[in-house]
Amino acid sequence: DQPLVVIAGPCQLESSEHALMIATEMAQACAAAGAGFIFKGSFDKANRTSLSGKRGLGIEAGLQVMADVKSKVGCPVITDVHLPDQCAPVAEVVDVLQIPAFLCRQTDLLLAAGNTGAAINVKKGQFLSPWEMPNVLEKVSSTGNKRVMACERGTSFGYNTLVADMRGLPQMAATGHPVIMDATHSVQQPGGQGGSTGGQREFAPLMARCAVSTGIAGVFIETHEDPDSAPSDGPNMIPLDRMGALLESLMAFDRLAKSDPFRL
Amino acid sequence: DQPLVVIAGPCQLESSEHALMIATEMAQACAAAGAGFIFKGSFDKANRTSLSGKRGLGIEAGLQVMADVKSKVGCPVITDVHLPDQCAPVAEVVDVLQIPAFLCRQTDLLLAAGNTGAAINVKKGQFLSPWEMPNVLEKVSSTGNKRVMACERGTSFGYNTLVADMRGLPQMAATGHPVIMDATHSVQQPGGQGGSTGGQREFAPLMARCAVSTGIAGVFIETHEDPDSAPSDGPNMIPLDRMGALLESLMAFDRLAKSDPFRL
Amino acid sequence: DQPLVVIAGPCQLESSEHALMIATEMAQACAAAGAGFIFKGSFDKANRTSLSGKRGLGIEAGLQVMADVKSKVGCPVITDVHLPDQCAPVAEVVDVLQIPAFLCRQTDLLLAAGNTGAAINVKKGQFLSPWEMPNVLEKVSSTGNKRVMACERGTSFGYNTLVADMRGLPQMAATGHPVIMDATHSVQQPGGQGGSTGGQREFAPLMARCAVSTGIAGVFIETHEDPDSAPSDGPNMIPLDRMGALLESLMAFDRLAKSDPFRL
Amino acid sequence: DQPLVVIAGPCQLESSEHALMIATEMAQACAAAGAGFIFKGSFDKANRTSLSGKRGLGIEAGLQVMADVKSKVGCPVITDVHLPDQCAPVAEVVDVLQIPAFLCRQTDLLLAAGNTGAAINVKKGQFLSPWEMPNVLEKVSSTGNKRVMACERGTSFGYNTLVADMRGLPQMAATGHPVIMDATHSVQQPGGQGGSTGGQREFAPLMARCAVSTGIAGVFIETHEDPDSAPSDGPNMIPLDRMGALLESLMAFDRLAKSDPFRL
Repeated sequence: DQPLVVIAGPCQLESSEHALMIATEMAQACAAAGAGFIFKGSFDKANRTSLSGKRGLGIEAGLQVMADVKSKVGCPVITDVHLPDQCAPVAEVVDVLQIPAFLCRQTDLLLAAGNTGAAINVKKGQFLSPWEMPNVLEKVSSTGNKRVMACERGTSFGYNTLVADMRGLPQMAATGHPVIMDATHSVQQPGGQGGSTGGQREFAPLMARCAVSTGIAGVFIETHEDPDSAPSDGPNMIPLDRMGALLESLMAFDRLAKSDPFRL
Repeated sequence: DQPLVVIAGPCQLESSEHALMIATEMAQACAAAGAGFIFKGSFDKANRTSLSGKRGLGIEAGLQVMADVKSKVGCPVITDVHLPDQCAPVAEVVDVLQIPAFLCRQTDLLLAAGNTGAAINVKKGQFLSPWEMPNVLEKVSSTGNKRVMACERGTSFGYNTLVADMRGLPQMAATGHPVIMDATHSVQQPGGQGGSTGGQREFAPLMARCAVSTGIAGVFIETHEDPDSAPSDGPNMIPLDRMGALLESLMAFDRLAKSDPFRL
Repeated sequence: DQPLVVIAGPCQLESSEHALMIATEMAQACAAAGAGFIFKGSFDKANRTSLSGKRGLGIEAGLQVMADVKSKVGCPVITDVHLPDQCAPVAEVVDVLQIPAFLCRQTDLLLAAGNTGAAINVKKGQFLSPWEMPNVLEKVSSTGNKRVMACERGTSFGYNTLVADMRGLPQMAATGHPVIMDATHSVQQPGGQGGSTGGQREFAPLMARCAVSTGIAGVFIETHEDPDSAPSDGPNMIPLDRMGALLESLMAFDRLAKSDPFRL
Repeated sequence: DQPLVVIAGPCQLESSEHALMIATEMAQACAAAGAGFIFKGSFDKANRTSLSGKRGLGIEAGLQVMADVKSKVGCPVITDVHLPDQCAPVAEVVDVLQIPAFLCRQTDLLLAAGNTGAAINVKKGQFLSPWEMPNVLEKVSSTGNKRVMACERGTSFGYNTLVADMRGLPQMAATGHPVIMDATHSVQQPGGQGGSTGGQREFAPLMARCAVSTGIAGVFIETHEDPDSAPSDGPNMIPLDRMGALLESLMAFDRLAKSDPFRL
């Protein structure tokens, strides 16, 4: 088992300077803690709660930021795609394509992503059981692309609330695909602030710790130097200056879990 | 208040002959019962549970079927769109564009649909509370297109189960937009049959009756002459030969409800 | 099919004068609307959210109030029991014993209630599926007492929220036992106000109407002349002066539903 | 922080020999692993799914078994109480009284339990949010008895399914009371086998591991030498011969978690 991979970055890309600042800091923190690192940032928030939410830099400027991060920080990068015809151009720059949770059943998007040959991270829909994910992952791997990851980000639990069912992690791992825990989106409160989504940032480290204790491949954590001023997902992002200590803690649980694997 | 509108047809379009047969029978049944009628059929099942599920006729053949129904039966038609660039060509043929539930937060799709000027029926996501729908509808109406309907089709309730919360109907109606109850999808059991979705067809008439009793604008009911042989959604579709009696019953509840409107 | 029975009264008994006032008004309203009537009141709120909530008159004073209502208004009465040894003394005065939802699986309470020979109304637990109720009802009817009713009062739906699944009504009716819809408790928001339970009084008539449209035997509606000053359940009780119009409306739906019964 | 306490034993007491066998083996395993140990067994299954489920030894014989375990194994013992007047006699023998989840809001039972002066373990109801537990615990501690524990055992998640929300553990711990994770009941499938409750025994170790990683005070695990032949809860109990290895594993996570406490 490989050490934990940390997928981290801001919810949305803001500028090259901003991305480089976060990527540099996270790369150092991950290296210090012994974790792998993939820089995450979105070029388009395509499904904001309301029309007034900021969409982001757009695909062209966003990919330029990603290219800058890759060349200057030297880490792999991940971003989400929303339409089939975005997959090919995005994959020219980006190492991992991410399928958003709401779109995890859109066959054409999954096929187009798989066909790029890039690694694919599929977020499990908030409306999906763990045992529906093998069919989802199979859509990608039917293209011959076997580098597919499954990502837990919480399941609908009444209105405006998600719950993370830890049983889903080994169920998805039983497919043989790496499993990622999205610790910051699983504490979202969708629509919980009327025109925007709320969150419980204080529980994200707990979600990460519990999931890492089961021996998963990676965690996904959004972070920002000033979450309350971020253009999206501020309520659930973790302050950047807290990430170093969090990673040190998670790596201790990762080492223990991987020395004592949980198997179904 | 207008009499109930019935949106009905097969889950997926199979052929012109098939569509004409169902549309003819439904148009007669609706006329006999005093209901409005819109013929529904999908040209692409874009989010099947698994890759092995049939996708359908495709956009070109599907639109031809819809054009045949319009010219020969004389009723308006509705179909669902999955990508922004499908909206304009579909709206050249089809009267109402439907936004699938999984896609109800995809801003570009809502804007593209709204910009066609066609009427729009937005299915409420299984992951959404009723009070998040005003933001969704506003995305469409921001285009200047005010002909937008909100459609209940059930909310995630644990794994593989949906529940229809009748409180959502007047909450959505409070936006001033017509509200539709999707009686057959709200009894789906998503992923409930492993590689496909199950359903509880026997409860669809109940869902319709309860919703109509609240005074909604319309019901959405998928129907097929032989549901168990249909290429998709067989477990929840209502047999075509049961629709006449069901409509008679629903119209009695519709008349009573509209003579005694429920208001929040 | 008999006309709808209305079980109504205040959440907790306050005094004979208060109970007589409500029972008299409700008896007249039910008679005018053509509904049956059973007066409801609790002598002990045995499971308040917090210790500071008022418990009520207690068993002795409460049963005296019930006896007064029976003799002066002439209607049958119902109250809830919390311990097996309360059943026999309560049944000496009261016509129908009610099993609280949290206690619906407590075998000894169900047996003791059944053994009194009184009619029994079992509230379905918020944690129970409709198909678990036959086992619950069988505990009562194993005593030889077949006068058992099943009552829907909402199911847990995330935290602090209940949802009423209308499918449960015909499923419970398939046991052959009368089914009651508790319209005011199914819109509770348990613990939703921190130290007490909130509620959405505005949706209780909707819950009642939808349920009555399925052809059930009765509705349970708590009412008070001044809900916001009531010692418990104020947020979900319906003002007494609204009950007459509500009953007229419900009886129209009841007549229609019973002329056109929904059967599974 | 003290090392993890393990509350373990069979779902229901069967005989002194059986209880002594399990208690002896568990006491050795806990001592070897460095965990505390409390022997658990029920004298009455008071809320079986159906009437045909075995109830157990009854209070008199059950307390004799508990007295035997205490004198011969020398460990503290815990059992559940169902009625207020059981509390005093049970507390004469038993060290910890447990309040069943369905009964966690029954004020008189909580007060009677508190008044015994015994330690009290309150199971959180399947219908309760974590933030409703302070009011529940306060009912007990209002008696002056501050030795109260809060126990997570899963929350209703649709029908026939529970989900364990790990966020509840630190929320309950913020009351200052010890928090216990019931690893075997939180994987129950209530009513999932028609006339009895199903379970996912294979996930109980995962539930325990995740919870222990958050730094809780104890775990509750039901165990039996032959779960599939046990008179109740077989589907979720852990085989006795697996407990030693499980405890060794849990203690490693306990040590790590307590060296790096998660705090809200």
